[in-house]
Amino acid sequence: MKKIINDPGNFVEESIEGLVKSHPDIYSFAKDNRRVITRATKEKNKVGIVTGGGSGHLPVFTGYIGKGFLDACAVGSVFASPSVEQIASAIRNADNGKGVLCVLGNYGGDVMNFEMACEITGSEGIKTKTVIVADDIASASIEEKLKRRGIAGMIFVFKVAGAIAETGASLEDTFNLASLANNSIRTIGVAVSPCILPEAGKPTFEISDDEIEIGMGIHGEPGIKREKIRKADPLVDDLCKRILDDFRLKSNDEIAIMINSLGATPLEELYITSKRVHENFLKLNIKIIKSYIGRYATSMEMAGMSITLFKIDGDLKKYLFSKSECPFWTN
Amino acid sequence: MKKIINDPGNFVEESIEGLVKSHPDIYSFAKDNRRVITRATKEKNKVGIVTGGGSGHLPVFTGYIGKGFLDACAVGSVFASPSVEQIASAIRNADNGKGVLCVLGNYGGDVMNFEMACEITGSEGIKTKTVIVADDIASASIEEKLKRRGIAGMIFVFKVAGAIAETGASLEDTFNLASLANNSIRTIGVAVSPCILPEAGKPTFEISDDEIEIGMGIHGEPGIKREKIRKADPLVDDLCKRILDDFRLKSNDEIAIMINSLGATPLEELYITSKRVHENFLKLNIKIIKSYIGRYATSMEMAGMSITLFKIDGDLKKYLFSKSECPFWTN
Repeated sequence: MKKIINDPGNFVEESIEGLVKSHPDIYSFAKDNRRVITRATKEKNKVGIVTGGGSGHLPVFTGYIGKGFLDACAVGSVFASPSVEQIASAIRNADNGKGVLCVLGNYGGDVMNFEMACEITGSEGIKTKTVIVADDIASASIEEKLKRRGIAGMIFVFKVAGAIAETGASLEDTFNLASLANNSIRTIGVAVSPCILPEAGKPTFEISDDEIEIGMGIHGEPGIKREKIRKADPLVDDLCKRILDDFRLKSNDEIAIMINSLGATPLEELYITSKRVHENFLKLNIKIIKSYIGRYATSMEMAGMSITLFKIDGDLKKYLFSKSECPFWTN
Repeated sequence: MKKIINDPGNFVEESIEGLVKSHPDIYSFAKDNRRVITRATKEKNKVGIVTGGGSGHLPVFTGYIGKGFLDACAVGSVFASPSVEQIASAIRNADNGKGVLCVLGNYGGDVMNFEMACEITGSEGIKTKTVIVADDIASASIEEKLKRRGIAGMIFVFKVAGAIAETGASLEDTFNLASLANNSIRTIGVAVSPCILPEAGKPTFEISDDEIEIGMGIHGEPGIKREKIRKADPLVDDLCKRILDDFRLKSNDEIAIMINSLGATPLEELYITSKRVHENFLKLNIKIIKSYIGRYATSMEMAGMSITLFKIDGDLKKYLFSKSECPFWTN
């Protein structure tokens, strides 16, 4: 296993310690829990935004703490949910008396542990609301949208929720905007090669040298179909069609897109993808207002990419483009 | 070869077209040459900053165009120098009457072609000066510093040169600051696994499953030594020692660091590296003012990373931290 690491058992602790040491103006360890990261400077008089989830996806989850983004994050082990105690600590640390919005991906363990943590902190007097991001159209049909997993689209929800909270908006208004964002996002991914789990030392899944899997999840969850690798343009056309079949847009609708590398896939390939995505939407007269191209939600060194569409208008557009301070986001 | 591409022969054209389509507010094709990228909005009354080099290193080179960064870039084929004609076009497009500073990596073909392009554009009345970045301490001894290759440290030179030029500084002053930056930077890298060239379809070098190569260049140029993979901490200690043996710093000196992934190496490993780099410098009471962690200069999906040290004070510090507008840089 060729990784630049020390003891695999310390992979998570050392990587988040590096994150905090590298950006001490942005991140801090919570005083009561080394698996909880907070903002370096606690804000006052705003709704707190909390997330949490397994490690191995940087910048997701904890990287998106910062002004105009998240307040605190509970950091699980690699591909594993954070504990109830860790999540409860993140909620307590993010609360400033105006309540806390939890934004998380739709994964069984995360959902259950967040629910319990909200109950515990609720009994302590902290008001919480929760948005469960479910943007992965490959993981369930539109009829079963609530079963869909949360992937790269989650970052758009972090962004708009963090931005409106920064204005002093109520928990209710923050929740409503984050929910609207969640319903305005669709993502589909394609896996090219697996990553290796540091402790297990073995790949998360197996795939032949000439195959890709459409819709595979970021932990190797099964996708829609495995097929022979083909050229980028027909592949991207297929992915765009799947998104548009799921989410009907009309001429002149405004969108943002995110072309996200799962890790190893380089920027060159993301831009070849983005070129074709732009061509697809231009044909339909759908207006791409902004393109986010890079590594936003990864699975360590897994190869592959995802395409996210975010329909923006009104407040969603305003808060997507408002200024933030986060090492992984350019305004 | 598992890449999300179309015809390998169109790899460069399609990726830069995707770049321009994705960020039309930042980048534009030069009117006279499809292998030259300029700013979307041409500036007036400032020194132009030009670079150029082979493709396959995004965001290097062309990604660093933007306000406070570069004005134009000549885009070569994968790992190949741009032509004299392309470079001359980039220089002409970047010129606003105050002259042009060329900043490039120290590679034979690039240096020769820039020299000829400067001669041609000089005969047309455009004044140019050139800074050849040579930050890779593994590529030649300190006595032969002029023979060193330019790698990730180049981005710091782009940043300060771009920032001072934005203030309306003269070509002479811009050249002097960029030269000072070039002399204040040291980088060393380690290669873990190769990338695959799109057209050739084969890896750039071979390396065993349990080996790494210290000091290997970003095109697979031979490094200092090949060794069995070891834990991150002793590896990072070794790299830091090599940098500090080459560039003597004293207590309270201020530096910025860049921990750069060559492509596939994930953020988690970069932060484990950064943690140890911080510990090394803290022991010596050298102050890390800012840490840049991510993918700044890559070789597509090559695995490995580099550590860059940039000694900053006075104007270098001021211009490193001045605002810029570039999708690959957070202020």
